[in-house]
Amino acid sequence: MWDQEVMMPAGGVEQRAAELELLAVLEHRRTLGDGIDELLDRATGELGDRSPDSPERADLREWGRERERASRLPEHLVAERARLESHAQSAWSRARAANDFAGFAPWLDRLLANARSRGEALRVDARHADAWEALAEDYEPGLSAQRFSELLDELVPRQRALLAELRGRPVPRLPRMPAATDRQEALVRALSVAIGFDFDRGRLDRSTHPFCSGTHPGDVRITTRFDPEWFPEAVSTVLHESGHGLYEQGLPQEAAGRPWGKAASLGAHEGQSRLWENHVGRSRGFWSFAQPLVVEHLGLEFAAFDAETMWRSQCAVEPSFIRVDADEVTYDLHVALRFRIERDLVAGNLAVSDLPERWNHDFRELFDLEVPDDRRGCLQDVHWAAGLFGYFPTYTLGNLQAAQLYAEAYRELGDLDAAFAAGEFRPLLAWLRRRVHAFGARLSAAELVRHATGRELGTAAFLDSLEARYRAAHDVN
Amino acid sequence: MWDQEVMMPAGGVEQRAAELELLAVLEHRRTLGDGIDELLDRATGELGDRSPDSPERADLREWGRERERASRLPEHLVAERARLESHAQSAWSRARAANDFAGFAPWLDRLLANARSRGEALRVDARHADAWEALAEDYEPGLSAQRFSELLDELVPRQRALLAELRGRPVPRLPRMPAATDRQEALVRALSVAIGFDFDRGRLDRSTHPFCSGTHPGDVRITTRFDPEWFPEAVSTVLHESGHGLYEQGLPQEAAGRPWGKAASLGAHEGQSRLWENHVGRSRGFWSFAQPLVVEHLGLEFAAFDAETMWRSQCAVEPSFIRVDADEVTYDLHVALRFRIERDLVAGNLAVSDLPERWNHDFRELFDLEVPDDRRGCLQDVHWAAGLFGYFPTYTLGNLQAAQLYAEAYRELGDLDAAFAAGEFRPLLAWLRRRVHAFGARLSAAELVRHATGRELGTAAFLDSLEARYRAAHDVN
Repeated sequence: MWDQEVMMPAGGVEQRAAELELLAVLEHRRTLGDGIDELLDRATGELGDRSPDSPERADLREWGRERERASRLPEHLVAERARLESHAQSAWSRARAANDFAGFAPWLDRLLANARSRGEALRVDARHADAWEALAEDYEPGLSAQRFSELLDELVPRQRALLAELRGRPVPRLPRMPAATDRQEALVRALSVAIGFDFDRGRLDRSTHPFCSGTHPGDVRITTRFDPEWFPEAVSTVLHESGHGLYEQGLPQEAAGRPWGKAASLGAHEGQSRLWENHVGRSRGFWSFAQPLVVEHLGLEFAAFDAETMWRSQCAVEPSFIRVDADEVTYDLHVALRFRIERDLVAGNLAVSDLPERWNHDFRELFDLEVPDDRRGCLQDVHWAAGLFGYFPTYTLGNLQAAQLYAEAYRELGDLDAAFAAGEFRPLLAWLRRRVHAFGARLSAAELVRHATGRELGTAAFLDSLEARYRAAHDVN
Repeated sequence: MWDQEVMMPAGGVEQRAAELELLAVLEHRRTLGDGIDELLDRATGELGDRSPDSPERADLREWGRERERASRLPEHLVAERARLESHAQSAWSRARAANDFAGFAPWLDRLLANARSRGEALRVDARHADAWEALAEDYEPGLSAQRFSELLDELVPRQRALLAELRGRPVPRLPRMPAATDRQEALVRALSVAIGFDFDRGRLDRSTHPFCSGTHPGDVRITTRFDPEWFPEAVSTVLHESGHGLYEQGLPQEAAGRPWGKAASLGAHEGQSRLWENHVGRSRGFWSFAQPLVVEHLGLEFAAFDAETMWRSQCAVEPSFIRVDADEVTYDLHVALRFRIERDLVAGNLAVSDLPERWNHDFRELFDLEVPDDRRGCLQDVHWAAGLFGYFPTYTLGNLQAAQLYAEAYRELGDLDAAFAAGEFRPLLAWLRRRVHAFGARLSAAELVRHATGRELGTAAFLDSLEARYRAAHDVN
């Protein structure tokens, strides 16, 4: 998907679509291959009194779930999805560039019809309230739409209130200043090493859309982009991707290639990346440590800005039309918007033709802003064009996880801010390794949080942290 | 292989080795799957009087050859090769960096034992004179070591004589001058477009080791690197890779994924890349066209050098210890060195422990130069570490093909040099499309040359061209 959207020339679409369709069908058939049920049954029989969070049970649970879901999905829906996505992404790309919603609408219609059929086929009454929930299980197993809705109902009003509080109290901002990208690269590499990313088992490269790909704990690759006049972008990006990378490098080596050797969920992954990006990378202590490195790598002209200024600048809040440009205070409003609309689309309660109006209406309600065009509105994200219905909640779950884990680490490890100022990130990393990474997928994301923090995932830690940190940075008392 | 050598962190070696071994074994088993012989037989029966160069016959010939070769190879040799290569490449990388031949020697011993066994297993008396020839068929089907040896016997003395003639008559050289890499990129992109590379069906990116990857005529990707003070490197590289890319884009679209939709051989591929790199890119006409573009993209300071100087500078000749840095006049001497040594290694006539001495001795004979260390000697190439025995001849076959095709195109199309000066590259490209690209693998590399030029592949066109072009550039009469 990434290659197709970012790299592939237009001439490759047809061939790629055919290949992806074939691959999807082959994978589907393989999951349903003869004799697998018997093997799973026999293995389950041999487990004896192995505990539910043992590696073996985790493997069997995941294999069984994959197989059970595959067996519910008719092959023609699998093939159709793969075929649709390839073409729809190209259409979306063109439509977004041309601000032409009508050019994408017929594709979205077909994508939704397919998603709805898949969701209905996958839905198990005892487990899923609706088709949307059945789809979301691909990204966040066990996610309840009802529960997520409640979480948003807690988040949205307090985030909007915080936004209102901060309005009119701008933080000092770093100016845009030229910084050669090779120097920026040296800087962010030093920061990534400092927080513990292991370059003997990983790489840092450049790409237009930053990402982290982990094929194995010994080979984890992150990428970033550089704005030649705005180094903080690369710092945030590399902390975020390093957070993903640290999780991948910390997964149990001996389980590589087995289901339990994977991350617990996409939300859990996002929890790690956002913990390092936001709770570490937007802390006063981190910038006490990083400011001298900025001056060392980028040049003496950066000495004009002290650690305090750099830290506050990273806490600037400004509502944006674009989700990927959003700050920490408003990010989840973007998720709320999409989650609510998406459920209505999948349920058939919202016609595609009415999507732009609904989007703009809801955006106004959440942000008090008028969406100027669909490019900055309902056409901005690739997710639906890629058939990813049920994916957006993982971003907010990541925010909640990050905050709850970080609060617990802080409670147990003492003044982390002071440790960061001294360049000590290892205690935090060791704690995450022990409490999160080492489990792989033996615990679900929900169990992981419960196990590490002693309570269910909720909004309190996140909202408290947001309010405390952003009020401090904005001098609100 | 490329990823492992260029990108993969050291921590990924073990896992990668295991994966590659599994993939190699799975591919081997798949090629030998039940019922395939019957299908091939039935298809052959249905072909009737289809001509030998029909697409269907080409497909069956290639499928049959793959299957026949796979059936001769015991699975344990396939697995061992894959396993060995992963580890040996890491060992080679370290050994080269440390100039430590002894650190690589045990791996080379094992690689050779495996290659010898594979060669013996693959060898068909009627087709192969020895194990080496059986191995070389993977890269250049139908290659005769005897014939290649004769070609080298014609090439080496005349290339050495030309080298002696040119010695002491240096051409004017461009100085090293700073040129921002984004400007260089704009320049080489313009040149690539000018010669006909289609960016709607291709991309140009950056990588440490330049390459061309063609998955389909609609998606062909080339890469280059940039020396910030020496733009001609990127020009040569992009012309070379665009040459590969033009071939890939010109392959029959309807045959994508079928054997006959592929290039005829590696030598044929190299023939296309070297034609554009050397016969076009080192011509007076090309530089008349390119010089104003250089000034436009890189800056007015480059106007100090006229087209004549740029052209001559690209024809500088200087013996190098390193093959990949070699100029056109001495390149095949590097191939001759490797070909002769490699055959002796595979035949068991040369012990690995004697390799450095033999290399340095032969290098002295060919170049009249003392190899200073193994890093610049027998440790320089990745090929053997990657199990690629029999690969080197394809470079020289490419040189010969390029020259013979270009001479014929010149004969038929008239003064190409004048066309290049006017920015007209399409007639040459159209000729190559018609005579080479459109055939895919329906004709073998040897048949392709015979068909396009009316004679067998030989050294005359290449040597005549080399002498004429390099004497002109060096003012030798």
